[in-house]
Amino acid sequence: MAKIGVWGLGSMGLGMAQSLVRAGHSVCGHDPRGVTLEGGCDLPDGDLDGAVIVVLNAAQTDGVIADLVKKMKPGAVIMACATVPPEFARAMEARCTEAQLYYVDAPISGGAARAAAGDLAIMASGQPEAFAAAEPILAATATSVFRMGDSAGAGSAMKAVNQTLAGIHIAAMAEAMVFGITQGIDPERFMDVIPQCAGTSWMLENRGPHVRDADYAPRSSVDIWPKDLGIVSGIAEGAGIEMPIAQAALAQFIAASKAGLGGEDDAAVAKIYAAQAGVDLPKGTS
Amino acid sequence: MAKIGVWGLGSMGLGMAQSLVRAGHSVCGHDPRGVTLEGGCDLPDGDLDGAVIVVLNAAQTDGVIADLVKKMKPGAVIMACATVPPEFARAMEARCTEAQLYYVDAPISGGAARAAAGDLAIMASGQPEAFAAAEPILAATATSVFRMGDSAGAGSAMKAVNQTLAGIHIAAMAEAMVFGITQGIDPERFMDVIPQCAGTSWMLENRGPHVRDADYAPRSSVDIWPKDLGIVSGIAEGAGIEMPIAQAALAQFIAASKAGLGGEDDAAVAKIYAAQAGVDLPKGTS
Repeated sequence: MAKIGVWGLGSMGLGMAQSLVRAGHSVCGHDPRGVTLEGGCDLPDGDLDGAVIVVLNAAQTDGVIADLVKKMKPGAVIMACATVPPEFARAMEARCTEAQLYYVDAPISGGAARAAAGDLAIMASGQPEAFAAAEPILAATATSVFRMGDSAGAGSAMKAVNQTLAGIHIAAMAEAMVFGITQGIDPERFMDVIPQCAGTSWMLENRGPHVRDADYAPRSSVDIWPKDLGIVSGIAEGAGIEMPIAQAALAQFIAASKAGLGGEDDAAVAKIYAAQAGVDLPKGTS
Repeated sequence: MAKIGVWGLGSMGLGMAQSLVRAGHSVCGHDPRGVTLEGGCDLPDGDLDGAVIVVLNAAQTDGVIADLVKKMKPGAVIMACATVPPEFARAMEARCTEAQLYYVDAPISGGAARAAAGDLAIMASGQPEAFAAAEPILAATATSVFRMGDSAGAGSAMKAVNQTLAGIHIAAMAEAMVFGITQGIDPERFMDVIPQCAGTSWMLENRGPHVRDADYAPRSSVDIWPKDLGIVSGIAEGAGIEMPIAQAALAQFIAASKAGLGGEDDAAVAKIYAAQAGVDLPKGTS
């Protein structure tokens, strides 16, 4: 049993914390919004073996790590799960090394249900010693740990690749579903047919039902995508490579955010397409 | 047992013809390239009960139907499987009605392996009597028949929606895979990880291995996409709706075709991305 702090108790962090509790660890949850963790211990008192950071972005991760380097045992491990630029992950690893801590660059994929089940996919990179220290955390929270390399940055690069596809696929689902509506195909029929054809994607099957059911309660919000596709776009510009499809998807999420939909489920990007096309999406029953 | 002609013995048409033979029908295969069908009968002699048209596009379909209206029994059924604009399907239905033939607007999805197994998904629309006449053909070739409506056009509209997604997903796979290469992630690792994460799609899992293995033998060629996404783009322009992601994917396939890759497998769109980014794709061993 290890003493582990979890920072950020959104749906992903809370699920990971619950998986750690279930695995028998002593888990201290911390969230600035006042979310509490059932079965959790008090705030960390400086003797943590490990910390899991599941906050929104690089700036929040930076703030948590600045605080943590004073509070953890030498040789303890920080596992950082937010989607961040690879160069930020490398800078955090350097700071942890200086403070005699290990750092695992460990972006996650899988959604809230898999987080709660301890069934995440983790794209991780870091020193072998960092992986060894993080082993109890990885074992409790993930069924697929992809080791991308022996230093921070490679995990975040893999996550950027995944987010490129995930963001494109959500916007493409919305674009195709609204196109279908203009051609007389309602979203219910769309969701009957496409998942059995070559046009399907994981995101289409996951987010398409939100549009069909007019359910925009945020499991993952529109505002994730200007951030994550923005990271991709920033890396691509830095490397001089063109990503026209990712750019087109990014523009649609930015439009959705500017239209006041930033806090809605990311499937709400369909509202931008529907408004432009002049068609109605399904209305909720409430 | 019915007497059925199959026009177009590419990988899809040949597979469908084989499924019809296996189901006990008398099948006459015809292909301008001289492909022959094992176990097939001679060219049609005017007493066909049904015809399946699995050619490349609307122009070829039009030519075959012009010929067929003279050769089929009254009350026989034509099942047209190429991806065509919905309005073209409606025009063909009208022509068949005039010639006392039934018409099923029946685009297919699933690929060559599923065609050979009689396991296609068919997005079909047409009169109930046309479906009744086509029943033996549908039963032998498809496991999923989606009835989209009682007149031609709706099947082709659904196919256009599917092709929107399928084309985008192929180009997005290429865009993300090349982005990964620039970040130190090789295509083999990409294909290990992404299919287990939220960024996956049917097309990524089907076409990604072609790039990884440098295998560009055409199962479905680059030149399909300027045609199919061109149909989508034409409909969208006619309806005044914007499809920025489909347009971005279309531009990449047009670039690939102009670069001389039109006859290669559609995964070769990755070569356009790799050339722009200045990175190498995997090379074949031959």
